[in-house]
Amino acid sequence: MTYRAPVDDILLALNYGAGLNDAVTAGHYRAYDAETAAAVIEEAGRFATEVLAPLNRVGDEHGATLKDGNVTTSPGWRDAYRNWAEAGWNSLTGDEAFGGQDLPIVLHAACSEIWSAANMAFGLCPLLTAGAIEAIGVHGSDDLKRIYLEKLISGAWTGTMQLTEPQAGSDVGALRTHAETQADGSYRLSGTKIFITYGDHDMTENIVHLVLARLPGAPEGTKGISLFVVPKFLVNADGSLGARNDIYASGLEHKLGIHGSPTCTMTMGDHGGAVGYLLGEENNGMACMFTMMNQARLGVGLEGVGIAERAMQQAIAYARERRQGRAIGKKDGGPDPIIVHPDVKRNLVTMRALTAAARTICYATAVAIDVARESTDENIRTKASARAGLLTPLAKAFSTDIANDAAALGVQVHGGAGFIEETGAAQYIRDARILTIYEGTNGIQANDLVMRKLAVDKGAALNDLCAELAAIVARVAASNDPTFGATAARLQDALGSVERASRWLLDKAASAPNEALAGATPYLRLLSLATGGCLLAREALDGRADETLREAATRRASLARFFAEAIVVQSGALEHSIVEGAAALAAADAAFMHDST
Amino acid sequence: MTYRAPVDDILLALNYGAGLNDAVTAGHYRAYDAETAAAVIEEAGRFATEVLAPLNRVGDEHGATLKDGNVTTSPGWRDAYRNWAEAGWNSLTGDEAFGGQDLPIVLHAACSEIWSAANMAFGLCPLLTAGAIEAIGVHGSDDLKRIYLEKLISGAWTGTMQLTEPQAGSDVGALRTHAETQADGSYRLSGTKIFITYGDHDMTENIVHLVLARLPGAPEGTKGISLFVVPKFLVNADGSLGARNDIYASGLEHKLGIHGSPTCTMTMGDHGGAVGYLLGEENNGMACMFTMMNQARLGVGLEGVGIAERAMQQAIAYARERRQGRAIGKKDGGPDPIIVHPDVKRNLVTMRALTAAARTICYATAVAIDVARESTDENIRTKASARAGLLTPLAKAFSTDIANDAAALGVQVHGGAGFIEETGAAQYIRDARILTIYEGTNGIQANDLVMRKLAVDKGAALNDLCAELAAIVARVAASNDPTFGATAARLQDALGSVERASRWLLDKAASAPNEALAGATPYLRLLSLATGGCLLAREALDGRADETLREAATRRASLARFFAEAIVVQSGALEHSIVEGAAALAAADAAFMHDST
Repeated sequence: MTYRAPVDDILLALNYGAGLNDAVTAGHYRAYDAETAAAVIEEAGRFATEVLAPLNRVGDEHGATLKDGNVTTSPGWRDAYRNWAEAGWNSLTGDEAFGGQDLPIVLHAACSEIWSAANMAFGLCPLLTAGAIEAIGVHGSDDLKRIYLEKLISGAWTGTMQLTEPQAGSDVGALRTHAETQADGSYRLSGTKIFITYGDHDMTENIVHLVLARLPGAPEGTKGISLFVVPKFLVNADGSLGARNDIYASGLEHKLGIHGSPTCTMTMGDHGGAVGYLLGEENNGMACMFTMMNQARLGVGLEGVGIAERAMQQAIAYARERRQGRAIGKKDGGPDPIIVHPDVKRNLVTMRALTAAARTICYATAVAIDVARESTDENIRTKASARAGLLTPLAKAFSTDIANDAAALGVQVHGGAGFIEETGAAQYIRDARILTIYEGTNGIQANDLVMRKLAVDKGAALNDLCAELAAIVARVAASNDPTFGATAARLQDALGSVERASRWLLDKAASAPNEALAGATPYLRLLSLATGGCLLAREALDGRADETLREAATRRASLARFFAEAIVVQSGALEHSIVEGAAALAAADAAFMHDST
Repeated sequence: MTYRAPVDDILLALNYGAGLNDAVTAGHYRAYDAETAAAVIEEAGRFATEVLAPLNRVGDEHGATLKDGNVTTSPGWRDAYRNWAEAGWNSLTGDEAFGGQDLPIVLHAACSEIWSAANMAFGLCPLLTAGAIEAIGVHGSDDLKRIYLEKLISGAWTGTMQLTEPQAGSDVGALRTHAETQADGSYRLSGTKIFITYGDHDMTENIVHLVLARLPGAPEGTKGISLFVVPKFLVNADGSLGARNDIYASGLEHKLGIHGSPTCTMTMGDHGGAVGYLLGEENNGMACMFTMMNQARLGVGLEGVGIAERAMQQAIAYARERRQGRAIGKKDGGPDPIIVHPDVKRNLVTMRALTAAARTICYATAVAIDVARESTDENIRTKASARAGLLTPLAKAFSTDIANDAAALGVQVHGGAGFIEETGAAQYIRDARILTIYEGTNGIQANDLVMRKLAVDKGAALNDLCAELAAIVARVAASNDPTFGATAARLQDALGSVERASRWLLDKAASAPNEALAGATPYLRLLSLATGGCLLAREALDGRADETLREAATRRASLARFFAEAIVVQSGALEHSIVEGAAALAAADAAFMHDST
């Protein structure tokens, strides 16, 4: 079972759900050509189907291997990566001055979803390169840009993000890798990093590591962390490769999933220290790292959308083919495809609705990022930046939560065959599980949403979003279109829950933060359901005016209805769980701590 | 991280939540000694911790292997099984006439949970033996009983259930294995079975296969299926082992989880046919098989409880040990254990609440099965049998759904370490995934609940249950105990949703079955939440009078409150999803079928 990019679904979500068309019309994009965009997505889909998807299982079965400090990727991966980079896929959003194509983030987002769906472990590599490009582009000196950007943008070299150490995971400030100043202005780094994705591999001739470390005498915690560029091979003045740098993969993790992606332990300093170059200012590494992390968080959300889509496609294909039992009321003939059974239908439509909602949230985040960069109006840029900040935790956490739900439903649709590795459905469960963890666990995303993003300007970004969503609901109600069923009413209920829960949380975030934090996860879900539900409805409303997408938009109304009537209805429960749950949790916790000591 | 049986939690659930004490007091048990029961559970826990738990990871890593038709289990498993059987653990509920201890099913249930928690792949083997004992005990001729029961009850031999064939999974009636009548009254079977748990192994000298097959000229579908006893080695008249029978393991599945449990393809008839003996009547095999399946379904539910408990214990231990970040408001000192973070607390308390609710539902099912067998009052037996029928799909599906939820939350609590196989948390995710599939997928359980169990006597069993639950809610309300918070109100809401949804489903089951089936899964969840919530409250209410469990019962009130206020609150959404969801699903399905063709 291969993967085919759902081009119409993607365009509908991009242009109408995420509001790209409106933003372009309003002049918030410097340049955007819808036809080019559609052609790019179409072509990405072709590459994904033909080259990346067939290597997905190879990567899972074979995995990456480590020998003498060198990591070898799975058979076929090296060539696939080179073809992919040579076709220009790594340079979509890169700066033209360094050979990039300067296309907007939304296009990169759509393509990222496609690479992840075809082969998530493969797609992870350029996700990290994109972070390195971003960090060097924003914080790098002219020298660093000149030496590294062109190679990274073309994909000739890849990037890594090196934060984690055994004692410093979510608590980045606890890291111990240290950097010594050298007379030539460079640094020598020593220390050990763990969980480094594509920390070493054989797909490119060089790797550019972005490493967080401490300078001598730096303040404790996150305020004493600096960011360094540490190449695998040093780069000579003429751009040719010099000596091997003192940074080596010393271990490879044995993971539940994404076996194709090497997760390395990296050791620096066994031979005098790894040569590094300061990126940004001393002790300001966390701010630089956040530049990478926000993009990466959206990227992880898109991995979730991709896996969910892939799992769904495979489950649908299986449900159409596998015959067990007869449809209700059918007396004669052989068994029917299991897709006739209502419970199987519910599983498949649930997968589809969740995937579509997550996709539109991720793309809306990408549009906000684009507008925050590209608009000529400062006020618009500020608002868009706040919107991007608000939506990023949703894009990351909701999309990856539903990726796990979809992967589980996919296996369920397969029945016993789903539990057998050869079927391929189980791989999505194994791969998807990391998504809720890396780039900030989903719990951390929820905390970020409640304690920071919600609180910005006393909830201004949220109010702005809710006003936009309420306008969509009003349009659904005014449409009098029976296809929407009770969509407007259910979305209205959800927005009411969002409003009450937000007010309660804003109050508690200041007065009793532990109570606010106790409701963070259900709040993230609540806001995601309301947002996703409204944006799906907007796809249905606005997409119908688009000739090429009319049919997809008409079907979208039914999906928006199912999402509203069968899934968004959880809003009231989530509100209860937020507002009542904190006290219940505190009480249970008191009992529970006791119980377990 | 090892496993310790939660003896107090088990006793609280057994005696008060599941209503065992009341049933004993009312005289529905022939003999039941609470002290013996507690001692048995305590001892089972010790054996599980010392012998079975340490072999769990060995089984996962090593797996079972097949060579020349013979399956070898993982290192240490053979000895562990023999010690386990010799200690009498297989014979708890067996008929005294054949060496059993004749203890009630509830005790077997508690012990099954414990074996599964310690080592689910190991515990599967006796689960299937129990099914074979049950089927032969109820349907076997005196000869079959004499030859097989003693060995099966002692655990000297194990049993299998052989239903599935490539084209016949959930649709058992499509099976093709056939049996030819022999002059001596025996049969010769030929065919291939797949997904046969412990189809072959090296832990015992013989294996007793229960095989579904067709006789020549049998009616099509499930009405033409007969059940046969097919031993691995034929048994001589004196009980000694004779010739190797023509039934061989011809393949071993490469599965997502339960690697320690060999899942075999079984081939019969390559050497003239496997000798089999008819169990029950010709063409009545499905009825006989159901005898095994109902017990097995409860057993699978208990596996879910076990895995959830194990995942929770490991997550709690990790959260107490792993230090990342400081508690809110704490300015100085090093990082705190992550259990101080509200989102982590929420995950842990959610795991605990779901596990406790599933446990009490499973045990209540076991009590109903006991009373249905043991009571001297026919009316009581009939009612208890209906109750067991109603609760079995809940015990199977709800417990295994939450097992997957708990396993996922457990990995989440571990953060990045959870994704690394060495940590052990990921194994629970891989193992638990089969639980929602085998012994009838959870979708099939939900369909069974809505189309059969609910409809019995126009909902009499359900009304009976709801009346009992309502009485508990009234007692919670009357208790005026602030520890319960809004428990009574939330449970009352849930019972209202159950009542309305049940009425709607009863109506639709007759008039528009596809609409009823579309709501089956959310209905099973709704009824499980209401039932679990009320039974947890009963544990808190009634357990306080028990000196040895008073402390546990007091803590249980807080857990019941969290379950009601943060989880049972989903009832309204589930009701919506059932009643509105069918139309939305039909509409989305119409759009969706189109979309994907």
